[in-house]
Amino acid sequence: MLEGLNTFRDALAKAGRVLLSTHVNPDGDAVGSLLGLRRVLRAYGVEATAVLADPVPVKYIFLVDEPVFGPGDEELARSTAAAPFDLVVFIDASERERVGEVAERFPQWSRPGALLVNIDHHIGNTGFGDIVILDPERASSGELVLEVADVLGVTVDPVTARQLYTAVLTDTGRFQFSNTNEACLRAAGRLVTAGADPQTIAERIYFERPAAFYRLLGHLFEHMTLHAEGRICVFRVSLDETAAFFRDGPYDSEGIVDFTVQVEGVEIGAFLRQTGEKTFRASLRSRGEINVRAIAETFGGGGHEKAAGCTLEGEMSEVLGRLIDTMTRSLA
Amino acid sequence: MLEGLNTFRDALAKAGRVLLSTHVNPDGDAVGSLLGLRRVLRAYGVEATAVLADPVPVKYIFLVDEPVFGPGDEELARSTAAAPFDLVVFIDASERERVGEVAERFPQWSRPGALLVNIDHHIGNTGFGDIVILDPERASSGELVLEVADVLGVTVDPVTARQLYTAVLTDTGRFQFSNTNEACLRAAGRLVTAGADPQTIAERIYFERPAAFYRLLGHLFEHMTLHAEGRICVFRVSLDETAAFFRDGPYDSEGIVDFTVQVEGVEIGAFLRQTGEKTFRASLRSRGEINVRAIAETFGGGGHEKAAGCTLEGEMSEVLGRLIDTMTRSLA
Repeated sequence: MLEGLNTFRDALAKAGRVLLSTHVNPDGDAVGSLLGLRRVLRAYGVEATAVLADPVPVKYIFLVDEPVFGPGDEELARSTAAAPFDLVVFIDASERERVGEVAERFPQWSRPGALLVNIDHHIGNTGFGDIVILDPERASSGELVLEVADVLGVTVDPVTARQLYTAVLTDTGRFQFSNTNEACLRAAGRLVTAGADPQTIAERIYFERPAAFYRLLGHLFEHMTLHAEGRICVFRVSLDETAAFFRDGPYDSEGIVDFTVQVEGVEIGAFLRQTGEKTFRASLRSRGEINVRAIAETFGGGGHEKAAGCTLEGEMSEVLGRLIDTMTRSLA
Repeated sequence: MLEGLNTFRDALAKAGRVLLSTHVNPDGDAVGSLLGLRRVLRAYGVEATAVLADPVPVKYIFLVDEPVFGPGDEELARSTAAAPFDLVVFIDASERERVGEVAERFPQWSRPGALLVNIDHHIGNTGFGDIVILDPERASSGELVLEVADVLGVTVDPVTARQLYTAVLTDTGRFQFSNTNEACLRAAGRLVTAGADPQTIAERIYFERPAAFYRLLGHLFEHMTLHAEGRICVFRVSLDETAAFFRDGPYDSEGIVDFTVQVEGVEIGAFLRQTGEKTFRASLRSRGEINVRAIAETFGGGGHEKAAGCTLEGEMSEVLGRLIDTMTRSLA
């Protein structure tokens, strides 16, 4: 059994109120494992409260079974003043500060000596906290919540199953990233039997984007440019075009850059979006060995090896030229 | 244990040469389970030969470890004249005739009294054959090959794992169709541990389409029309446009109609492609309750409830009008 699980159970047995949080800009694993853990702890008989520094992204709102507090909520301040938390759990956060504003505020919401629990699967986790449940072999934090449920003897109900299945699904990119392993597929299988509906969940997350999103994607595909013998694919969109596509609804291009590296032969892709008269945001993706963080850093940006971003200033054609030049040099 | 498995093992123990085939227009489950079964039987020490009425589709060629015979191959005729098959196995074929030309020919390639084995997961399987291994609870035939390997005591190697993983992956639409269950996710997990690479396989099958495919998709998305308050989405492309998009390579629009029902709110979608001066091919998809086969049948076509097709004659605008009218009426 994973280290820390038994200690966590013992701490829960003594705790009255538990605070749960996860990282800023929460993704599917963050939201799913936070909400799933809250349900598991409540089923165990603990009063669990979830606080998030950022709002739950629209596409994960279907997972929200009970409200989640923001760090500035007065009701939260009032209730914690009356009854401070006995235990604080950060899940899917590789370091203490990743929970944003919650990291600054949680000591004032908790009783003195309240233990901090760190449940995570990121390989770079700093090991912060008093109780650490960390397994970098796991593809998602959602799987660790399933282990917590097992240790507590809590049966996962269909709502929890949906939350945790979403965690596994999204952190493996639909069972397709290189972290996809037997353990996550087995966990997903258990969650389907427990009531998660793979079809509905995938449709909610990956499809059902508004028509304007697909018209923009269509425009980008039709006018994409390929460089370096097809190893580079570039999408670009101007402010005027963006305005025209999203006349009737909010702008939405989330995940659009991922499509650049779906084209046969493409190793790195960029989505260049005009954000001001002479300002452009570039999102970069790599499907192979090329490190796109290095490209982003050239322009003062950052990110990961396979997903990075940066801001460029200038005329569209000149900015495009610089970006494509740098991308081409990175292939050498 | 599944009925028929032990009988199959006993028959294999007595068999010298075994013929394997699967259905016409083979999909990922057909190709993957056929090739996987061939490897499993060979590892068990049986001489197994695969024959397919149709060629292996380009996107599944990466699975082919050894050549597959066509029913007209002279080498096959010569070798079976010298040493006829002792056992014939049809996998993933819901009826005997689904193997096409192989159904007519296999008696002349086999010794008198050769047993016919039927391994399948389709609910409508007719139960043909002398030994029947049928489990409609399974999402794919690939999972049944894994059971065969278990019964024979054969360890699945990485090549076989890749073939069988592809079978499971494609027949569940990337673990997303409503048939996705715990058993198939567990099987997929075992296959990953046995050496299947989920990332490479998904990329080979679902991405890496040529740039021309994505430019066409882009064009279709940008110019799609929505009808009946957004419940219908229509893609259309003329002969001239098709020619322009595929100037440099073979025409490829496989699966493009599936994108129509990814748009938020869309229940049925159509991809209308001009194939002659006044001839159009319509592919239809349903994401919900609407039966698109009924729409296709109106125009003399056919298919399934969620995927169907038909041919229409006339001018583009008139054909479009008829199709959209019929689709709109189907929503009532």
